[in-house]
Amino acid sequence: MEITSTDMEQFNENPLYRTLGIRILEVGKGSARGLLEPTEIVCWPFPGQPHGGILYTLMDTTMAWAILSGLESGYNCATIHLDIQYTAPAKGKRFYCVSKTVFRAGRIHFMQGEVRDAEERLVAMAQGTFRVIKIDR
Amino acid sequence: MEITSTDMEQFNENPLYRTLGIRILEVGKGSARGLLEPTEIVCWPFPGQPHGGILYTLMDTTMAWAILSGLESGYNCATIHLDIQYTAPAKGKRFYCVSKTVFRAGRIHFMQGEVRDAEERLVAMAQGTFRVIKIDR
Amino acid sequence: MEITSTDMEQFNENPLYRTLGIRILEVGKGSARGLLEPTEIVCWPFPGQPHGGILYTLMDTTMAWAILSGLESGYNCATIHLDIQYTAPAKGKRFYCVSKTVFRAGRIHFMQGEVRDAEERLVAMAQGTFRVIKIDR
Amino acid sequence: MEITSTDMEQFNENPLYRTLGIRILEVGKGSARGLLEPTEIVCWPFPGQPHGGILYTLMDTTMAWAILSGLESGYNCATIHLDIQYTAPAKGKRFYCVSKTVFRAGRIHFMQGEVRDAEERLVAMAQGTFRVIKIDR
Repeated sequence: MEITSTDMEQFNENPLYRTLGIRILEVGKGSARGLLEPTEIVCWPFPGQPHGGILYTLMDTTMAWAILSGLESGYNCATIHLDIQYTAPAKGKRFYCVSKTVFRAGRIHFMQGEVRDAEERLVAMAQGTFRVIKIDR
Repeated sequence: MEITSTDMEQFNENPLYRTLGIRILEVGKGSARGLLEPTEIVCWPFPGQPHGGILYTLMDTTMAWAILSGLESGYNCATIHLDIQYTAPAKGKRFYCVSKTVFRAGRIHFMQGEVRDAEERLVAMAQGTFRVIKIDR
Repeated sequence: MEITSTDMEQFNENPLYRTLGIRILEVGKGSARGLLEPTEIVCWPFPGQPHGGILYTLMDTTMAWAILSGLESGYNCATIHLDIQYTAPAKGKRFYCVSKTVFRAGRIHFMQGEVRDAEERLVAMAQGTFRVIKIDR
Repeated sequence: MEITSTDMEQFNENPLYRTLGIRILEVGKGSARGLLEPTEIVCWPFPGQPHGGILYTLMDTTMAWAILSGLESGYNCATIHLDIQYTAPAKGKRFYCVSKTVFRAGRIHFMQGEVRDAEERLVAMAQGTFRVIKIDR
C-alpha cells in the first residue's frame, strides 16, 4: 500500500491522534516515524509528562504504520503482543518514535521501536509481534 | 495509603480518564479494578473498538492503583516494563480490568492483569514490573 | 493428542531433560505441571541455584506440553514470544512449574505459567504466545 | 571490572556452558558477544535444532556479561525480566548472540540482544531489564 504524504495528513486528522497529540511523520519500506506533542489532557498524573499509556500508544501505532507501509491494500494488522520498557521519565514537549519490521515470518511481523525526547534521550524501547489480517468487507 | 471511594471519585475526574473513558472502581490490598467505557474519540481505526493503546492505558493505570493502595503516602510508582498480549478483538461498550501485585521484592512489584469485555471474554492479558519511588517535594 | 503417563515417562527420558533435571509430571486439558530438580551442572554461576535460563527452559517446555495435550496428532507448537519475570532468587532442590492456555485464537495460544520452589515461594512468572504448526513428514 | 581474554577462557570452562555449548567471545564497554555451538544434548525435540530455552540461556548470559563488563568488582547482576521473540527456526551448527546496554538508570540496565545463525539469519531477538546487585561475602 503506497501511503503518500497527503494520505498521511488525512490519517493524522483522526480524533484519537488529535486528542492525544500524535502525528505520523514518515512511513515507508517497513519503517515509520511518529511524533507525540502531548496535549495537556494526556499529561497526568504528572504535569508536563505524558502518561506511559500514551507513549505506548505512540509506539504501537507507529509500529502498525511501519507494517502497513509494506502491505497490499485490503490488509491491515493487529498487535499480538508488545513489550515496552520505560528507560527515563518523559519530560518535554516532543517525543519521536522510530519503528521498524526487524523480521517477517509469513503473516507475523517482529517489530522494534524506541521513543526519544527532543534532546535524543531514550524514554522508552519496545519489541512486539503483529499479525497481518485481511480486512472483511 | 488509604484510598476512600470519595478520594477515588475525585481521581476519576482527571481529564485523561474522562477523555478516554476510564474509571477506577475499586482499590485495595494490592489489587484494583478499572473500567473502560470507550469514548468515540478512542475508537479508532476501527469504529466501536478502542485502540489497543487505550486498553494498555487501562491496564497500566489499574496496575499502578493496585500498587498505590499498599503504599504509605509520599510514595508513588513507575512502570519499568509491561508486556501485553491481545487475545481477541475488543468489541463492546465496557471493558473491565483486574490487576494485582503477585510478588513484591523490596521496591519492585511484579504485577499481573487482564481485561475482559462485558460478556467476560478475555481481550488482553499482561504482566509487568513497577518500581516504587519517593515523591520529590 | 492423548498423552498417557507411560508416554510421558518415555518423553522424560530425553537427554535435554535428564541433563538439566526437568521432568513433566502431569499433562492434560490445556495445562501441564513440570518439575526441575536442578543438576549440579546447571547451578552456575551461583552454587545451589539453577541458572535463569534453565528456569526459563522449564517454563517454556511446560507451556508447550500444556498446548500439546490439546492438539490432534500430527501437530506441534512453537514459541512466538515469551516474557519471563524473576521474582526471587531460586534456591532449593525442587522447582515446580504450572502452565495453562489462558486463551486460544485459532492457531495462536496465549499462555501463562509460574515457577515456585518447594516452599511454594514464587521464583518466576511468565506469559507467552505459541503457534500451532503442522509437522512436516 | 576488567575482563581479560584469559579470564574469559576460564569462565567459559564452567560446566553449564560446556554442557550446552556456550562460549562468550568478547566482552567490553557495555556489550558482549556469545556463541552457541549446540551439543547433541540440547537439540531436542527437533534433531539439529537447539531448544528455545538454550537460545534464551545464550541471550540471558550474554546480556549479563555486557553488564558485568562495566561494573566494579564486588558487583553482579540479576535478570528482572526478559522478553524473547523467536523469528525463525534455529537450524545450524553455530549461533551468535550480540547484546548491549541500551540505557542505564541507576542500578537498572535496559538491554537488547539478538541471535543469528552462521548465515546471519535472525533467529531470536530480546529485550530485558537487569538489576545490579552487591555480592554478599
